[in-house]
Amino acid sequence: MLIKPIQALLVFLLGAAAGLIGDAGHVLSGTTRYLDTGGVPFLWESPFWFPLAIGLATVALTELSLRNPGPTRPADWSDAAAIVATVLGAYALTTLEPEGPWLPTTVFIWAIGILAWKHFGQASARAAVIGAITAIVGSSAEIGLYANGVFTYSESINVLAGVPPWLPGLYFAFGSASVLLGAATGKVSTS
Amino acid sequence: MLIKPIQALLVFLLGAAAGLIGDAGHVLSGTTRYLDTGGVPFLWESPFWFPLAIGLATVALTELSLRNPGPTRPADWSDAAAIVATVLGAYALTTLEPEGPWLPTTVFIWAIGILAWKHFGQASARAAVIGAITAIVGSSAEIGLYANGVFTYSESINVLAGVPPWLPGLYFAFGSASVLLGAATGKVSTS
Amino acid sequence: MLIKPIQALLVFLLGAAAGLIGDAGHVLSGTTRYLDTGGVPFLWESPFWFPLAIGLATVALTELSLRNPGPTRPADWSDAAAIVATVLGAYALTTLEPEGPWLPTTVFIWAIGILAWKHFGQASARAAVIGAITAIVGSSAEIGLYANGVFTYSESINVLAGVPPWLPGLYFAFGSASVLLGAATGKVSTS
Repeated sequence: MLIKPIQALLVFLLGAAAGLIGDAGHVLSGTTRYLDTGGVPFLWESPFWFPLAIGLATVALTELSLRNPGPTRPADWSDAAAIVATVLGAYALTTLEPEGPWLPTTVFIWAIGILAWKHFGQASARAAVIGAITAIVGSSAEIGLYANGVFTYSESINVLAGVPPWLPGLYFAFGSASVLLGAATGKVSTS
Repeated sequence: MLIKPIQALLVFLLGAAAGLIGDAGHVLSGTTRYLDTGGVPFLWESPFWFPLAIGLATVALTELSLRNPGPTRPADWSDAAAIVATVLGAYALTTLEPEGPWLPTTVFIWAIGILAWKHFGQASARAAVIGAITAIVGSSAEIGLYANGVFTYSESINVLAGVPPWLPGLYFAFGSASVLLGAATGKVSTS
Repeated sequence: MLIKPIQALLVFLLGAAAGLIGDAGHVLSGTTRYLDTGGVPFLWESPFWFPLAIGLATVALTELSLRNPGPTRPADWSDAAAIVATVLGAYALTTLEPEGPWLPTTVFIWAIGILAWKHFGQASARAAVIGAITAIVGSSAEIGLYANGVFTYSESINVLAGVPPWLPGLYFAFGSASVLLGAATGKVSTS
């Protein structure tokens, strides 16, 4: 592990908090609804394992960015703040049309994903690959949860095997922006 | 013609695809409705000439940007991706309030137009002029189509001679960002 | 006063116009409603003192940015245009969910605030402090107006002592972006 303990804790909390806030927006807006979560405890609007999973994914992506440093530009904690703002802001924008057509939301979330890849991932192949892996793994996990009756997206948008076509775009933004997280949060933990 | 054949084909397909996707969002959200299109064939939700017109306009704007190079910054295909994401993302955002007041949508689409001019057009007079021409020509064409009963915007937003006041803002974003398209897609075709 | 008369007039008009447009969006979308304004004259949808207050606040913030120059990057009038586009665009986005849950709007408006601080305020402590002061003063003023029965936000969003939790985020964007206004509008008045 290249990630330092304090840095791991920081990005875990960052990811978990963002997951909690984003998921609460989904539930409160009717974008998603939890069905059968097996009686596990809830944190705010999410079963406890949801923020845990997003927090661990954020740690994994940061570790990945440290192992594949590439020609990243210098970054500090304000870049981490901008990454969180962009990804969580996109997350919140996915709640605007829970009953509407899925196409426009899909377009503007993928647009944010591409701009995040360009700006934070510096348009690198590395950021595109990490973004694509995040999109595939994240969307597959949610498709599996849907198939097992754990939760459901609203009917008008769940056209991609049970999830909305903007979902991989949101995970792509998360993954491709994360290539700066190692550099950005590394500065925090060493100062 | 300064544009190379392969580059012309590329930007034509890019513009046509973006036009198709954006127009489908307008139709599916009820932002626009086609009325009398004279029985011409449709592609997805658009009469076939719509993506054709947007594709040709994109070729024309790229040619224009090649003939008036100015002090553009270096650009590559990732800039072309960012331009498409920005303009198509704005296009999708115009569908959020088909029945609402036209003012807020007009404000945030013009805001995106100004930021696109600043970022992609490098705040140049050239980009502002090309953006303004695109806004006037594009909006006038749609006003003509409306006047001839071809299509209509929803009633609460068609206050500018039949089109919404955000429409010139969207075309302005398209035109002023396009000054980078020559440089951005030129790199693609020569590599 | 370090601000020049012509520069003060310019930013006053800029701020007053932006306030008028933004407030009209709030009223027309049902985000806010004026109740008892004591019979004062209205400009468009606002009591006359509203654009006045926003215009004067813009002058005050510009003066503040001139007195605390710090290591700002060079800026010109196109930066002023980008700042207005960002803040007024965010203002317009606050109207999208007048009856919806307050959480998603709060997330994406604060996200824009953080990105404005990062981009225009160059992630400086100075911009964060000025943004925070603007957020506290602006929100407190609106809480006072609400408490005195002058106006009200819609019921589903007025959860922060009568105002929506995105309101300080919007003022934060305004304040933290304003640290460039001195440099940006200074160039206008001397050229």
